Amino acid sequence: MRAEIIAVGSELLLGQITNTNAKFISAELADIGVDVHYQTVVGDNPARLEEAIRIAEKRADLIIFSGGLGPTKDDLTKETIARHTGVELEPDNRALLSIQAYFERTGRPMTENNKKQALVLKGSTVLENRYGMAPGMAITVNGRTYMLLPGPPHEMEPMFRDEAIPYLQRVSGSQEIIVSTVVKFFGIGEAELEYKVQDLLAAQTNPTIAPLASKDAVTLRVTAKARTAEEAHRLIEPVLAELHNQVGENIYGTDDETLSSKAASLLTGAGLTISAAESLTAGLFTALLAEEPGISASFKGGMTVYDAEAKTKHLGIERQLIDTYGTVSAECAEALAEKIRDHFQTDIGIGLTGAAGPDSHDGQPAGTVWIGLSYKETSEAYKLRLSGSRNTNRLRAANFALFYLIRKLESEKV
Amino acid sequence: MRAEIIAVGSELLLGQITNTNAKFISAELADIGVDVHYQTVVGDNPARLEEAIRIAEKRADLIIFSGGLGPTKDDLTKETIARHTGVELEPDNRALLSIQAYFERTGRPMTENNKKQALVLKGSTVLENRYGMAPGMAITVNGRTYMLLPGPPHEMEPMFRDEAIPYLQRVSGSQEIIVSTVVKFFGIGEAELEYKVQDLLAAQTNPTIAPLASKDAVTLRVTAKARTAEEAHRLIEPVLAELHNQVGENIYGTDDETLSSKAASLLTGAGLTISAAESLTAGLFTALLAEEPGISASFKGGMTVYDAEAKTKHLGIERQLIDTYGTVSAECAEALAEKIRDHFQTDIGIGLTGAAGPDSHDGQPAGTVWIGLSYKETSEAYKLRLSGSRNTNRLRAANFALFYLIRKLESEKV
Repeated sequence: MRAEIIAVGSELLLGQITNTNAKFISAELADIGVDVHYQTVVGDNPARLEEAIRIAEKRADLIIFSGGLGPTKDDLTKETIARHTGVELEPDNRALLSIQAYFERTGRPMTENNKKQALVLKGSTVLENRYGMAPGMAITVNGRTYMLLPGPPHEMEPMFRDEAIPYLQRVSGSQEIIVSTVVKFFGIGEAELEYKVQDLLAAQTNPTIAPLASKDAVTLRVTAKARTAEEAHRLIEPVLAELHNQVGENIYGTDDETLSSKAASLLTGAGLTISAAESLTAGLFTALLAEEPGISASFKGGMTVYDAEAKTKHLGIERQLIDTYGTVSAECAEALAEKIRDHFQTDIGIGLTGAAGPDSHDGQPAGTVWIGLSYKETSEAYKLRLSGSRNTNRLRAANFALFYLIRKLESEKV
Repeated sequence: MRAEIIAVGSELLLGQITNTNAKFISAELADIGVDVHYQTVVGDNPARLEEAIRIAEKRADLIIFSGGLGPTKDDLTKETIARHTGVELEPDNRALLSIQAYFERTGRPMTENNKKQALVLKGSTVLENRYGMAPGMAITVNGRTYMLLPGPPHEMEPMFRDEAIPYLQRVSGSQEIIVSTVVKFFGIGEAELEYKVQDLLAAQTNPTIAPLASKDAVTLRVTAKARTAEEAHRLIEPVLAELHNQVGENIYGTDDETLSSKAASLLTGAGLTISAAESLTAGLFTALLAEEPGISASFKGGMTVYDAEAKTKHLGIERQLIDTYGTVSAECAEALAEKIRDHFQTDIGIGLTGAAGPDSHDGQPAGTVWIGLSYKETSEAYKLRLSGSRNTNRLRAANFALFYLIRKLESEKV
């Protein structure tokens, strides 16, 4: 099967956004053995879109469109394909009900142009949009498959994985299935990780191991092809064991696990309570921890004490400690962890203090961070030397605190 | 001038890398008034590349290639264009010397295929590569300009800004410049905004007004073409005034301003201090506010009181208030705002309480949020009915609190 991806949107041609959809779709198609020969971008212009379709039809038997399914006048992908293929548009009842429900729920008025989003190509397979209003769809006309996907990546990506891939596998009659596990790393750079496991990377053919580009995380994706899911998992398991053996101390989870979901499940699983006192992160650590439903069983509260006065007045940290060591210090981080633990009467206390940047703070250069962790009869302090921008440093600090918490809880389990 | 961008590289079609070059080049071309009608991606395959060139020649008078100028067998962009246009390749002495110098400097042996990188199209303008070995080039054949750029963004981007842009301005003899202002909205959907200003959108030609897709914000971009920047700004100003007139209550800023940067500048500008008590957002509001350097002048502290007990015990909210109205109520939100304001002795207090989801909380359905704002002699409460996932709701709630804070501070200024 030869595929072409056509992304529709003038904002792409103006350079206002990057065509990440073509990359995502191409990588997913590669996994199921579909070759992509061309990617095209065209603006919100029906004549030029139709010209692009005509060209794609000469060189591909699967044409995947992203974008142009929205409610506005500029969104013309569906209408253009309908006219070009001679397939009518008709309202899809499920999509219409879901759009109406959305507007009822939010109490906002539904405008006439929102109804346009519920139109689909007659006879197409509708692909459900769980994160937005525009449904996707796929239809085969004269032996050529046209697949229409919404433009926003957070809508398109889950739709593609959950609905489009199975559809394409059905259409192509493929017997092989692909199973992959994403291994997640923290506290190690991508280049360093690849260097450490280079022999393993080079030796593998099935499963393959490849870094999965991601803005926020360093990951390796282990992908096996097999006749059954069980067989694929049997191929993957020894590779996971070997990764744990070689770089296990930087692994915190797999697949959809995040630092906060992992920390939350360890906390609630062990029945431990936690609180945090934050300075440079100003609530970011607790905000991340509270991303997980059910965390209220463990998370009792937090306090942001932004300046030295707040630290002494509202958390009872001794003025003398701050005068002696400064607020950016191991002593202050441990005191924050201990005092907040006392304040909220929790099993664990976390303290975060540092110089986020751009300027130095309390005599310490930007990027210096201390994380305090108080648990049972001891307190520990971890130092970071970060080199990012102010807000990158703040996020890294909060994530490191989650990572140290995970390591602590994992080591207690053994 | 109509342009097409052709990125060459099989790694793009396999989804291993994102085509950031097309975005960068498109944005730069938009600034000098060159329209991009298509972006194309093709693999390291001479026949398919030549096919892409043939198609591009029918619809563009400027074709910009990126990638395929390297030393390996796969790199065939130059050779393919030479064969297609009938222009010979010849060694460029400056490029050859620079490549030789590189190998002498690093003490690595220069191989025969590195010499290939010094070949350029005869008669072309050579574009210097300050960060790599492959020179760029541009040549006009039969009235059509072909520009060849290296693939790695850190080589291509400075080359494009420093050498390609001046070349294109010389070739096109263009005097026109483009100035744009992005207007940022909150609390209004894209469809609703476009519906409200549809007459304005339809009436405009210079400046143009267009929605700019963005994950986090609803925006309109106002773009003017003129001889001078002053003239462009004179064209933009009445359009901005009209937008403020029609949908001003949902505008919070322009260009790089965010909700948190706007709130921070209003707070520090007015010399006002602030603190926040958070429940469902668990520190997210204060974490967003603290994104701005210098906010410590205004931001004094925050507290996360996650359950009813923490609200009474640590913030002194009356048990009876919670028993009567529940924690998800206007009364509780206002009490949070007032109590935290007293606690940290600040001018303004913010309170956030609600049911983040997925489950209902304290008798209120998921997505119900109350925001309290205490300032001077009054407290106000705002109700939200959100319909997203747990963490979308939490982020929306924090952003709504910033938005109401901005509106309050703006109205006080008048």
